[in-house]
Amino acid sequence: MTKIKGNLLYGQSGGPTSVINASAYGVIQEAFLQSDRIEKVYVMNHGIQGALNEELFLINEQYKKDIELLKHTPGSAFGSVRYKLKDYEDDDTDYKTLLKLFKKYNIRYFLYNGGNDSMDTCAKIARYMEREQYQVSVIGVPKTIDNDLPYTDHTPGFGSAAKYIANTMAEIYYDMLAYPIGKVTIVEIMGRHAGWLTASSALASINGFGPDLIYVPERPFSFEKFKRDVKEVYEKKKHCLIAVSEGIVNELGHFVFAKSGKDDFGHSQLGGVAAKLSELLSRELKLSTRSVELSSSQRAASHYQSMVDVNEAVGVGKYAVELALKNYSNLMVGIMRTSNDPYTVGWTSFDLSACANYEKKMPDTMINMEGNGVTQEFIDYALPLIQGEHKPKYRLGVQQFAKIK
Amino acid sequence: MTKIKGNLLYGQSGGPTSVINASAYGVIQEAFLQSDRIEKVYVMNHGIQGALNEELFLINEQYKKDIELLKHTPGSAFGSVRYKLKDYEDDDTDYKTLLKLFKKYNIRYFLYNGGNDSMDTCAKIARYMEREQYQVSVIGVPKTIDNDLPYTDHTPGFGSAAKYIANTMAEIYYDMLAYPIGKVTIVEIMGRHAGWLTASSALASINGFGPDLIYVPERPFSFEKFKRDVKEVYEKKKHCLIAVSEGIVNELGHFVFAKSGKDDFGHSQLGGVAAKLSELLSRELKLSTRSVELSSSQRAASHYQSMVDVNEAVGVGKYAVELALKNYSNLMVGIMRTSNDPYTVGWTSFDLSACANYEKKMPDTMINMEGNGVTQEFIDYALPLIQGEHKPKYRLGVQQFAKIK
Repeated sequence: MTKIKGNLLYGQSGGPTSVINASAYGVIQEAFLQSDRIEKVYVMNHGIQGALNEELFLINEQYKKDIELLKHTPGSAFGSVRYKLKDYEDDDTDYKTLLKLFKKYNIRYFLYNGGNDSMDTCAKIARYMEREQYQVSVIGVPKTIDNDLPYTDHTPGFGSAAKYIANTMAEIYYDMLAYPIGKVTIVEIMGRHAGWLTASSALASINGFGPDLIYVPERPFSFEKFKRDVKEVYEKKKHCLIAVSEGIVNELGHFVFAKSGKDDFGHSQLGGVAAKLSELLSRELKLSTRSVELSSSQRAASHYQSMVDVNEAVGVGKYAVELALKNYSNLMVGIMRTSNDPYTVGWTSFDLSACANYEKKMPDTMINMEGNGVTQEFIDYALPLIQGEHKPKYRLGVQQFAKIK
Repeated sequence: MTKIKGNLLYGQSGGPTSVINASAYGVIQEAFLQSDRIEKVYVMNHGIQGALNEELFLINEQYKKDIELLKHTPGSAFGSVRYKLKDYEDDDTDYKTLLKLFKKYNIRYFLYNGGNDSMDTCAKIARYMEREQYQVSVIGVPKTIDNDLPYTDHTPGFGSAAKYIANTMAEIYYDMLAYPIGKVTIVEIMGRHAGWLTASSALASINGFGPDLIYVPERPFSFEKFKRDVKEVYEKKKHCLIAVSEGIVNELGHFVFAKSGKDDFGHSQLGGVAAKLSELLSRELKLSTRSVELSSSQRAASHYQSMVDVNEAVGVGKYAVELALKNYSNLMVGIMRTSNDPYTVGWTSFDLSACANYEKKMPDTMINMEGNGVTQEFIDYALPLIQGEHKPKYRLGVQQFAKIK
């Protein structure tokens, strides 16, 4: 194995998670340790767009305090982007720009942190550089709150989002119990095509305050069935807490409420799924309803990082550097669960092209027969991922975040 | 002073806060300590409604673990209610029921935990019992996230809600910075008539990530002015974070967006204020916008309790028992700020009737000239209230709450 000496380039892409910057921390710390092989660490401003515009930051010891804060920082500390590279067979303009940049900055390690689309970007760059015989290790570092990347047991970012959702659901449940006659409360949860996040609301049940009903996009949603489910719960308990995915679909696989225009029920759509369901339910069942959209806190609640998730996010970052130093390329780092009780994991890797543009859905065995809840198999799978609390770095009562750019 | 021996009755009323149960903890702990004077501690199921229906719980040492958990429990652990007592001169039915109950259970200390309406209930009961010459100390324990009770420097519940809001705003701000061209993000914050909570979003600026614009109900809201404000910020920064109160009003003092029917702009109203402003703004300024409603987490985020707030909530509960044991009646406990730096407080009390049905608004000097932000005076006032973190009691990664009922 030729031990190439060169520089490392790291970037972030796609929607943020509350621990993507913990992966950046892992990459940077491991790269600093390997200074015999990695001379300089650069970071792209807004991912691949920064590379194309030659907007790179040199990361060095002067940022020590902020590098530590990365583990506690939500969003994308170096900026993210949604930019899809064309196929280089059709148009290689961007690829030529990148190759020129790689040569100019002697980039021999290219690490890209993102979800499905980012792995596609990564795979294309790996293949192009190989074709051009430019030696560079291109490694994908996974992240997504949606947990929909294939092969890896789960994705960094999911555990913290799940922890935020489970705890917030428990709080909303307890809040709902305040009055003698409670409301039907519908909480909308992220995940356009996969139900992992919505399902994780069920973890609130561990201490007695979980949702009564859960609807994920993996099962077709019927409003009539939904009404019957709610009625049954409400008649028994005088309140009902529902977790519903933003991406629920009807029998035909169409979104139940499209983002604009008319919805499935012929009404024009202004609010989100929960708001709409809440309105329909109150009209048809004459019940007092309320809708809550957990919104961007799901990906940004740095104050609710799971310790397991932070450690794994750092771990995949470090492992990506290790793989790169072994001259591997065209790989995505993955997490392999080696035991569930006690929960242990190892790092692994998968072919990037196989991981790109594929969305992993919940298996049927994790959803109950009725399609309105989860099974114990899901709880056993998800519960280890929300363990431990990573205390934020407060200053005067407010969290501090990294300021590197 | 006659040292009457008897039993204590405590209840919760109105909207929950994340620390109202910490006040319950204070009341119960202090009452247990004073067992020479207080023989039994009863709690009403759903406040005054439970008293009228003779639904009382006897609280004793068997609930030790759950009593400890009260400090960490959101919502109303004993159930809340919104029930307005009639004037006893017009209809004394309820009062007679209460007097009978007080006699039957030898209630000599009646402590009621709530906001403006609850203080009204409390004042009426105090006067009626005095008229009937039944010796009972009736003391109001303040709570409300809205911070709109008069005389007291601030209310228990506000500090924790403010801490949740400030930190969540910082997270949303950082999240918004991820993309090269950010969105205009409008966050809707509770407080129908007073801007305290919306203003507290400004505390996020302490570490550099606070809202660009803040609109409170104390100043009339003009959509034209709002558009100009947003445009100015966006042109400079390419993103804009806005905190807006759910209760903003126009020049005539009417809500800008009524809850149902047509809004001020002639559009029918489905979503909340932020959703509506976001839609109008995107239509008129052709900017990408997003709305977030912080919703019930503002009053239920037990995981974001401020230590100062928890301690004060416990403190007002304990002090209410002390006042009751001194045979005082018809008083609301208040917090008096004795120094701001270092921040220190003392307990005080006010005439209940004066505190009932009066909403304290933000003084003009805490809002900036432009009506789109706060002044340093507000920061100095609110910052001490969000200090310190009260760690939740996690079990398997999820918060545990008291189960006493």
